[in-house]
Amino acid sequence: MPTPVEFAGTHRKRFESELTDLLRIPSISTLPDHRDDIRRAAHWVAEYLRSMDLPVELIETVGYPLVYAEWLGAPGAPTLLGYGHYDVQPVDPVNLWTSPPFQPAVRGSRLFARGAADDKGQFMTLIAAMRAYLQTAGRLPVNVKLLIEGEEESGGAEIAAFVRSHADRLRADACLVLDAGMFAPGIPAITLGLRGIVTAELEVTGAARDLHSGTYGGVAPNPFQALAEIITGLKDKDGRILIPGFYDRVVAPPAEESEGWKRLPFDEAAFLRDEVGSTALTGEPGHTPLERMWARPTLEVHGMPGGFTGAGSKTVIPSRAGAKLSMRLVANQRPDEIMEAFASRVRAITPRGVRVEIKRRVGLGAPPVVISPRSPVITAAQRALGEAFGREAVFVRAGGSVPIVSDFAERVRAPVIVTGWSLPDAQLHSPDENLDLEHFHKGIGAVMRLFEHLAATKT
Amino acid sequence: MPTPVEFAGTHRKRFESELTDLLRIPSISTLPDHRDDIRRAAHWVAEYLRSMDLPVELIETVGYPLVYAEWLGAPGAPTLLGYGHYDVQPVDPVNLWTSPPFQPAVRGSRLFARGAADDKGQFMTLIAAMRAYLQTAGRLPVNVKLLIEGEEESGGAEIAAFVRSHADRLRADACLVLDAGMFAPGIPAITLGLRGIVTAELEVTGAARDLHSGTYGGVAPNPFQALAEIITGLKDKDGRILIPGFYDRVVAPPAEESEGWKRLPFDEAAFLRDEVGSTALTGEPGHTPLERMWARPTLEVHGMPGGFTGAGSKTVIPSRAGAKLSMRLVANQRPDEIMEAFASRVRAITPRGVRVEIKRRVGLGAPPVVISPRSPVITAAQRALGEAFGREAVFVRAGGSVPIVSDFAERVRAPVIVTGWSLPDAQLHSPDENLDLEHFHKGIGAVMRLFEHLAATKT
Repeated sequence: MPTPVEFAGTHRKRFESELTDLLRIPSISTLPDHRDDIRRAAHWVAEYLRSMDLPVELIETVGYPLVYAEWLGAPGAPTLLGYGHYDVQPVDPVNLWTSPPFQPAVRGSRLFARGAADDKGQFMTLIAAMRAYLQTAGRLPVNVKLLIEGEEESGGAEIAAFVRSHADRLRADACLVLDAGMFAPGIPAITLGLRGIVTAELEVTGAARDLHSGTYGGVAPNPFQALAEIITGLKDKDGRILIPGFYDRVVAPPAEESEGWKRLPFDEAAFLRDEVGSTALTGEPGHTPLERMWARPTLEVHGMPGGFTGAGSKTVIPSRAGAKLSMRLVANQRPDEIMEAFASRVRAITPRGVRVEIKRRVGLGAPPVVISPRSPVITAAQRALGEAFGREAVFVRAGGSVPIVSDFAERVRAPVIVTGWSLPDAQLHSPDENLDLEHFHKGIGAVMRLFEHLAATKT
Repeated sequence: MPTPVEFAGTHRKRFESELTDLLRIPSISTLPDHRDDIRRAAHWVAEYLRSMDLPVELIETVGYPLVYAEWLGAPGAPTLLGYGHYDVQPVDPVNLWTSPPFQPAVRGSRLFARGAADDKGQFMTLIAAMRAYLQTAGRLPVNVKLLIEGEEESGGAEIAAFVRSHADRLRADACLVLDAGMFAPGIPAITLGLRGIVTAELEVTGAARDLHSGTYGGVAPNPFQALAEIITGLKDKDGRILIPGFYDRVVAPPAEESEGWKRLPFDEAAFLRDEVGSTALTGEPGHTPLERMWARPTLEVHGMPGGFTGAGSKTVIPSRAGAKLSMRLVANQRPDEIMEAFASRVRAITPRGVRVEIKRRVGLGAPPVVISPRSPVITAAQRALGEAFGREAVFVRAGGSVPIVSDFAERVRAPVIVTGWSLPDAQLHSPDENLDLEHFHKGIGAVMRLFEHLAATKT
């Protein structure tokens, strides 16, 4: 009988081939036309888990089903709650893909397909690790609960409600969210902090109808001018947010984290050149780029609908114009409090002549999360990743928001290991999304080691 | 044999019906799909003039044809150069029209149709006045040259080039531009000043591609934030433009004009309520609303393309965003100089991290124009309008730009009578565009009287 590690080694092609099958399903959750594909992907995952003799439930929601499975054959051992999502992003602009997004293709060591890195190629390493144990030892070192959702890319409201109402059933000693990535090729990372998010839309109304700028320019309020004043009244030239009270609850990262960040092989010039591509980085003076992305809040404008945006000119003073924006929050900012402070500030700086409506987007908010680097669970994860990749796992944070992490942290009340095998150039949400297959297999190894080290935390 | 005035009186229905025929042609010059309709309108006007036994030329351009006709049977008498345009604005949003825009409908004394006021129902009064003379007296009191264009709503570059290269042929003692309006119901007006215009588009580029605001928010420049900073750096909260040198050449209107404006029956509260409909008027302190619209320059943003403007949220930091804007100029600001100063200011206040491209729109610029109230031509026009409408014609200005007026003023070098019969609520460029038919007929009468009074200026 081979060991689980030997099994994984001899079944590399099988795991790759199974992942490829799943990647062929265009399970785009943001496009209603793909409704059937999403369900196919859910069934594929459920069937795969059933083939491992696990009891599987397809939990129906008003949206797409959650796939739930568990193996609880290790009484007394810790329980790990694993998370992934089987839905993917849209593929536009599809003409920029080197190979078709749902025809997985290997070039070099990379596997290219929509969902390769986000998130099919990541959560499948957890399932493969389980198979390696179950088909060899017949058991796992820890109990495992699996919750795989189909709406991560389209809001994730259903899983949040499920976690809220089934906290008992999901009880665990550690959570594993395989939806983050590595710091750099060969350098595994554990994400100890995620920014939260609140989104809002401002709609500014001036005149009762669109007006001719010749006739009325000089007396009619211009909603775009008002929005420019509001936006510059929300964030200054240095990226500092001007909302009173905004920074009151912001706490600096613990020294052990921020000191660690300084040792990370982060090349600011290369980052500017290769990742951002602007003439300079921006943001608050006195904070490094990593601090600004990971531990400082921001406010960003995403679009300003209204008025005339076609080719050529139309000299209109539009009746209405809008601004779609969001704020990224850091510990310990509270979404509701920030939203209130934002709304007060907007009202205070809205110039005369216009009315402003503040539309808060429902279902797309999340509090920031931080996870203590001192937790034994995190120590176990760091060891597991370090052993599998042959290089110490670094502690990072992520500027984005993964709402499930806050849901787990708040409801399951267990340390959340946020990690994954995707690289900074994995092109998540973009053409040519990819996963390095070497990292995929090392990821399987890391999860197997995590089972063992977690088991040891209770002995 | 009836007099011309009697003829016009007994042919009211005929003139209305002929106008209605012309209004049925959807000659929208800004939409390529209407190419054939524009040509149909040009031919309709040409045929109508030919039916008056006038020699007519359809002058082809790279765009739509100019219709030129002349009656030069009064040697020694002054020559009047008349202008109008047979093209119209688009009709969007078409669902807001009470009756279909190209099915003219009379409700009360108003005729509703796209082009009723801008400009078919205005220039047709000049042609009707000519017909009234030619079919009765067999001659006109003055020589008349007619130049009717088909690209006023889409730039008017062709007529500008034609006027420039045919100044000799167009030589006249007075010009009549029937493309302005009345001050109020029953109160005719002569427009002695028009603001000029320059338009530009700013395109701001930050990162090399669209970035995720979670991952990059705090380090990547946001083009919308940069544009908000630029816009507030171009115009302050009080509507004062912050471009160095911008006001250097601005001259106040002569006292006889600005004193006259104070006597105009302008009700600021009613104007705010019924015309603008915002919570307050805006603009430079120390200037009345009429001064701000007529004799002060402005800068307006018309649209801000880029980023995400669909329903819902997309937390993107767009690589690019734009601002479409224009400046209205007053005497004696010079478009080229202002454009240079604008560009310098934009470059000076563009924040670091982004690049800005300043696209100047070609063919949609015009210098401001002022016409002296002391010219005998203006006196003749004031008498003619006063007699026809039974109320003294007031001197006003217009905030908009009518490039042909500057072209005539610069090239023909004759006083330009800028007037018309449309009312402030004629809904130019908007749904339910309309013309009061009583004003249409009084307009015909005013033009006939103008012929006589102009003839008298040379005797």
